[in-house]
Amino acid sequence: MLDFWFTEHHTDNYKVSWRMDKILHFEKSPFQEIAVVESPELGRALLLDNIVQTTTKFEFIYHETIVHIPLMIHPEPKRVMVVGGGDGGAVKEILKHPSVETVDLIEIDERVIEVSKKWLPEISHALRSDKVNIMTIDGLKHMKQCSSQYDIIIVDCTDPSGPSMDLFSKDFYRDVYNALKDDGVFVSQTGSPSFSTHFKQAVQNIMEVFPLAKPYLTCEPTYIAGFWSFTVGSKKYQLDNINPERMFNIETKYYTPDIHKAAFVLPKYIEQLLK
Amino acid sequence: MLDFWFTEHHTDNYKVSWRMDKILHFEKSPFQEIAVVESPELGRALLLDNIVQTTTKFEFIYHETIVHIPLMIHPEPKRVMVVGGGDGGAVKEILKHPSVETVDLIEIDERVIEVSKKWLPEISHALRSDKVNIMTIDGLKHMKQCSSQYDIIIVDCTDPSGPSMDLFSKDFYRDVYNALKDDGVFVSQTGSPSFSTHFKQAVQNIMEVFPLAKPYLTCEPTYIAGFWSFTVGSKKYQLDNINPERMFNIETKYYTPDIHKAAFVLPKYIEQLLK
Repeated sequence: MLDFWFTEHHTDNYKVSWRMDKILHFEKSPFQEIAVVESPELGRALLLDNIVQTTTKFEFIYHETIVHIPLMIHPEPKRVMVVGGGDGGAVKEILKHPSVETVDLIEIDERVIEVSKKWLPEISHALRSDKVNIMTIDGLKHMKQCSSQYDIIIVDCTDPSGPSMDLFSKDFYRDVYNALKDDGVFVSQTGSPSFSTHFKQAVQNIMEVFPLAKPYLTCEPTYIAGFWSFTVGSKKYQLDNINPERMFNIETKYYTPDIHKAAFVLPKYIEQLLK
Repeated sequence: MLDFWFTEHHTDNYKVSWRMDKILHFEKSPFQEIAVVESPELGRALLLDNIVQTTTKFEFIYHETIVHIPLMIHPEPKRVMVVGGGDGGAVKEILKHPSVETVDLIEIDERVIEVSKKWLPEISHALRSDKVNIMTIDGLKHMKQCSSQYDIIIVDCTDPSGPSMDLFSKDFYRDVYNALKDDGVFVSQTGSPSFSTHFKQAVQNIMEVFPLAKPYLTCEPTYIAGFWSFTVGSKKYQLDNINPERMFNIETKYYTPDIHKAAFVLPKYIEQLLK
């Protein structure tokens, strides 16, 4: 039997390997290496610079968690911006909310979009919606040009290395604040509390810019072991004051209004890490 | 530089490797292979049959979660039994509760206890307490001989293979039920909802034997990726009706009364798995 594996080095001292049946696609874009592989444990997986971004088996955990929490905090989200997220998984969840009128997807690497459209249709199909404007431009620059125009901004980017380095800086979060309407809500993935060196600084940066801000957690099998964090920043709305009825007609596999509240309950060591 | 790793095969298609600096101990006991290694990412790690059981860096997540939830459900736990748990980590957490008078530790493999005492003193130190009776006997047989004598029974065993195979059967859970007092509380680790083949059956077995029963979750970096489950069975006490004041003088790094409630909130796909 063929014995093919792909190995992801989460840290210098810790690596994870998944068996693969096929390499469906590989290319070097101007920004990164893009690969799609098929794995008996994960389904199809999208790798950017050899790091698993999303898989057909587990994408719902990450995408539902990054999307439904900010969209439920806002009582009526209409205009949404996604930075990164070229696989389309976040857009798929955003469009489940009937109030949403437009989604601007700001993905620096158009090859990620094209590869996802071709090889990951279950995840990327919403990119073809009329409500979605895809802009293959630099999210940092675009953010500076926006002012008070979005209800929701979601930063669905890779960890801080390569093109996403500055997406965790306080300057960028200030631009996000300005790009949001007066009652806007922002979220970014902020890495592993146990293994990512940028977790604490990213959370603190968001907390310094937004009046209401807090990390919340999920646990996604293909990311660095242990909990995975997101941090939400809200200009006006309380983070746990949601209307559960809005989920009655929205189909999910992970998110529920109870999960919304539970996700913000942090283990003591993570609370203490942030002090 | 030396490039030594230990690799754990979580499934046929998925393996995790941690760098190690030293193999501190290795032996074959009559029951299993026991190893202690030093790892830059994990501190010291105890491996049974090449599966990480506990590490000095992350043991608090598992041990606090398996212990404080059942001990807080019971209003005044005095007599506690632990099946397995030869590393002493569960006993360490149990003895933080001032009401506890005795802990019977039923560990089939006395070499696990001796190795833990020697190489993992930060985890195993409580095994030397006067309140602890260590019995190196078969937990299955011992359970059959007990009747209405424990407030709490904790099954802190390896996954179902080797000596712990029958510790997930309905027959065993019936014996646990009988060994508990009329208001007793039971918990067992029940594996990974995403990757362990025994998760669903073990939870259903416990739910059929105990009138009040539910799984709850944590996320421990050294176990199979994603959430890790425990299932509690209670004869009388509600699972979330706890007195937070009891934790005022108990030092923890993971557990809080808010975590107690949040841990029982299951993502929708795990709820559906159990239907």
